[in-house]
Amino acid sequence: MTVVDIRIELKKGVADPEGSNTKKTLESLGFKGIDSVRTVKVFEIVIDAPAEEAKARAEEMCRRLLANPVIQNYSIVAR
Amino acid sequence: MTVVDIRIELKKGVADPEGSNTKKTLESLGFKGIDSVRTVKVFEIVIDAPAEEAKARAEEMCRRLLANPVIQNYSIVAR
Repeated sequence: MTVVDIRIELKKGVADPEGSNTKKTLESLGFKGIDSVRTVKVFEIVIDAPAEEAKARAEEMCRRLLANPVIQNYSIVAR
Repeated sequence: MTVVDIRIELKKGVADPEGSNTKKTLESLGFKGIDSVRTVKVFEIVIDAPAEEAKARAEEMCRRLLANPVIQNYSIVAR
């Protein structure tokens, strides 16, 4: 069993309305010094395979379903 | 400047329909050996403060806005 974290984030320059609205709301609550807020999606997948194979399968999952290469980057960590 | 990752996940036992639908879809694409898929939300916040203070502010952001303590756990990593 391997726990794989697939972290999917928006590419630089792609608008992140949820992040910018969260920033505005935090500021309206009085939080200071916030430079930026970005949202990231993580899929935590438990795969019944050793780490190397689980990572390879996760990579294929990203290519075939989970990530949109036009606007998103992904990274995979097995732990 | 400190980059703080706020990781918000559902508590054990709370239904995660997005995760379970993702699991079903991956299986329908032919992926085998998937034990579970859970979705996690990460806010990546850049705060203009040293690490310790940035973490303390992020903790307060979770309590006041970002996390719902009834169904979610959160963890904070400064990097």
